[in-house]
Amino acid sequence: MKTIILAGGSGTRLWPLSRDNFPKQFLKLKNMDKSIFQMSFERCLKLTGLDEIYIITNINYKFWVLGQIEELGYKFNEGHILVEPSGKNTLPAIYYAIVEIHKSGADIVAVFPSDHLIEDDDELTRVIKQGEQLAGDYIITFGVHPGTPHTGYGYIRPKEPLTIGYAVEEFKEKPDLQTAQVYVEKGYLWNSGMFMFKTDVFIEEVRQHCPEVYNAFQLSDINEVYNKTISISIDYGIMEKSGRAAVIPVDIKWSDLGSFDAFYEEFPGDENGNIAFHEVTLINSDNNLLYTDQDKAVAVIGAEDLIVVDEKDALLICKKGYSEKVKDVVNKLKSNNDPRADFHLTTYRPWGSYTILEEGFFYKIKRISVLPGKKLSLQLHHHRSEHWVVVKGTAKVTVNSSVNFVCSGESTFVKSGYKHRLENPGKVLLEVIEVQLGEYLEEDDIIRFHDDFGRAETDDARSDLSSSYVKKLLLPEIKTKQLELTSSFDASCT
Amino acid sequence: MKTIILAGGSGTRLWPLSRDNFPKQFLKLKNMDKSIFQMSFERCLKLTGLDEIYIITNINYKFWVLGQIEELGYKFNEGHILVEPSGKNTLPAIYYAIVEIHKSGADIVAVFPSDHLIEDDDELTRVIKQGEQLAGDYIITFGVHPGTPHTGYGYIRPKEPLTIGYAVEEFKEKPDLQTAQVYVEKGYLWNSGMFMFKTDVFIEEVRQHCPEVYNAFQLSDINEVYNKTISISIDYGIMEKSGRAAVIPVDIKWSDLGSFDAFYEEFPGDENGNIAFHEVTLINSDNNLLYTDQDKAVAVIGAEDLIVVDEKDALLICKKGYSEKVKDVVNKLKSNNDPRADFHLTTYRPWGSYTILEEGFFYKIKRISVLPGKKLSLQLHHHRSEHWVVVKGTAKVTVNSSVNFVCSGESTFVKSGYKHRLENPGKVLLEVIEVQLGEYLEEDDIIRFHDDFGRAETDDARSDLSSSYVKKLLLPEIKTKQLELTSSFDASCT
Repeated sequence: MKTIILAGGSGTRLWPLSRDNFPKQFLKLKNMDKSIFQMSFERCLKLTGLDEIYIITNINYKFWVLGQIEELGYKFNEGHILVEPSGKNTLPAIYYAIVEIHKSGADIVAVFPSDHLIEDDDELTRVIKQGEQLAGDYIITFGVHPGTPHTGYGYIRPKEPLTIGYAVEEFKEKPDLQTAQVYVEKGYLWNSGMFMFKTDVFIEEVRQHCPEVYNAFQLSDINEVYNKTISISIDYGIMEKSGRAAVIPVDIKWSDLGSFDAFYEEFPGDENGNIAFHEVTLINSDNNLLYTDQDKAVAVIGAEDLIVVDEKDALLICKKGYSEKVKDVVNKLKSNNDPRADFHLTTYRPWGSYTILEEGFFYKIKRISVLPGKKLSLQLHHHRSEHWVVVKGTAKVTVNSSVNFVCSGESTFVKSGYKHRLENPGKVLLEVIEVQLGEYLEEDDIIRFHDDFGRAETDDARSDLSSSYVKKLLLPEIKTKQLELTSSFDASCT
Repeated sequence: MKTIILAGGSGTRLWPLSRDNFPKQFLKLKNMDKSIFQMSFERCLKLTGLDEIYIITNINYKFWVLGQIEELGYKFNEGHILVEPSGKNTLPAIYYAIVEIHKSGADIVAVFPSDHLIEDDDELTRVIKQGEQLAGDYIITFGVHPGTPHTGYGYIRPKEPLTIGYAVEEFKEKPDLQTAQVYVEKGYLWNSGMFMFKTDVFIEEVRQHCPEVYNAFQLSDINEVYNKTISISIDYGIMEKSGRAAVIPVDIKWSDLGSFDAFYEEFPGDENGNIAFHEVTLINSDNNLLYTDQDKAVAVIGAEDLIVVDEKDALLICKKGYSEKVKDVVNKLKSNNDPRADFHLTTYRPWGSYTILEEGFFYKIKRISVLPGKKLSLQLHHHRSEHWVVVKGTAKVTVNSSVNFVCSGESTFVKSGYKHRLENPGKVLLEVIEVQLGEYLEEDDIIRFHDDFGRAETDDARSDLSSSYVKKLLLPEIKTKQLELTSSFDASCT
């Protein structure tokens, strides 16, 4: 048996928590020490070994996937991370992995979204293992017993029972409340988006019901495949058409976190129905979700049914029941080319991460965290100098031909035009406060000479897509003074 | 004629905009280029010359007063800033100034709060000048024609007309709505807290009606005076008892900004009644006040009648009609010794200001702004080193016996235990990003050797009261590594 994790989904319905550059699967919720992706990954490990897991994602999320698996303590086979050239909905994504897996022969495969919250892993894996016996003949979907007549989920209507589960009579779109109540009474199940089948059965179903996808994947180049394939979901492309659809009920606590209203339902409130993750002063306030910064003093007075999400660069206040409109906010930001639609202040890189702390006129301050043993690319900036103060760990700093070690409490800097490299030679996290100065501080002022992660040869604009979070500085009409930098490179570790 | 500005009031009813260390009079509202104090000061200048203005405040606000007057372009006589040793309500504050003014002979005095918003300065000063003729015989208060039956203000019931204005029949406490409606119908006036009288008349009234205050001020030492005097308002101590109370109506747009509900009324809303000062995404939302950070993406969905005040270190969400409860929030923070009750992230000093940008484990980042020609004290820290990156202007940096100029784009640092001084020798603002490192980063790790502002000799804990905004670091149980710093002092301006 193999497992597939779908980790390429973008989505902004939980903006500003999730953004295009940081979808919800990679989010660590405030009360959890693992991300939703990490929990999905560990769930797969209950079904299969590390080498039996395949992950579908895109190039922007690949380092998230790798980093979050590494953080769990696993060394993952990069060949099992399949990178889609573009997003074409779930059917091509799943089929891409199925074709890969099938190359080594027919096998049973379980497919999981990476962005759903599931509390009962053991019950789910027990049911999946039991269901394996159906996988030779059926395309199995798992149907969650509805806890409530939820209007945010699709429903599955079961037909006659099989040895386990049921044949599927019909898939139902998200209903209104009244219809949902009828569905629940009649024993319909929530459509969870989890599947199981044998690769050869699935390939045959795709050939038969979705030849556009099947034919595209006959091409050898994956870019051409994705240029050619249509964009289509597995539900619409296969499940609703196949005569082999089966549903196995599972009795688990499950949520797709598809909106803040769904998000709200996942946490227990206090006696007034308020949900907070840090100390908040609440007066005459009921049934609010307060997802706020732990470093901030937050007070709520006389408010009811609010969802408040406060991040350093964005604030959302949304009345319960209105969270479908969050996507309109994101669309508006996107139409204004506002980077906060897509990016957080923290950007993750293969070597670690950086967070923008402050942007001023001609300067920018970042906190840079470099993982043990990792190094940034050997690079050069034409328009900015960089001052580095090491606040944790030890940095190995190369500037042109000189190499120095800069320890915690020491500082150094790099003139514009100098080749330089920042590296963490140690065993603990390296933290550096960087003050950039110059008349142009965008991330695209970078020339890479050597990079551990293959970025020197790639198109910089693309590999740096995630770092363009910066407001364009309005250059004044006066000729700016060329910044003169003096050398103060004299650091030596004792 | 003389004018007195009462600028010692603290108050947290507009928290988190105003805090104990930064009361609302010094606040520059988002759509105004002057603070409420500055507007009050310029109003006085329409009545009297610069040398006829007296300001009552306390030691913590003195540099605010001086700084904000300097910012208006005036050189103010520091002897006219009377510093109260403690707050004893309005009567002792006013009487302190009256006694000072009366030393040069009897004179007419107009008294103004510094924290009220008035739109019609010219009309007010016209009425005050007209009213001068009553000042020889009456203690005059100015009564604002009520625009609405406001329940947040006290009312004055006029008696028989005088040559101008009326004798006062009675002062009324804040009424309920029904009573307020009756008051408005009967022609009562809002009690504005502005007064005018002759010094000798006032002194005699205080002697007669409030001997506790009169007698205390017979002492020569102001600290003893304030130890002895009772705490009492001018309304309760004099106005309500005096047979000489008169009220002159003024027809002006006036607000005491006594709560966020009052604050709300001061700004025009859009067609849905929403008030915002920066771009905000509003969906299905009406009648909200959004006082938020211009650098933040803010979205409000489905919300009504909310007051939202978002600062970097604090967030308030308050339903209209509940803003009286803001003081309970502040009291709760105070009872937790939370510095955010009292301090902002920006602290103003006689030489300029600093803003805390980030606090981490063993480090802190500040942006320091030094006014042209000003310098910080010559000082020393036992527990921290300081790395300085100049991002604007030129710094003159003294470390032990060496003096260097550090220009924009250059950096330097100061080891712990080294005497140092930061100075702006230039004509433009100096901006420095400071990264502090050490095992103890509180403001009280400072030894001052020389200070332009007399702080070397004073109790440091007191003069530094406003800078104790720091969370105590939880020191780990391990012995911390002593930070070794290398010297990189090699900056020279070209």
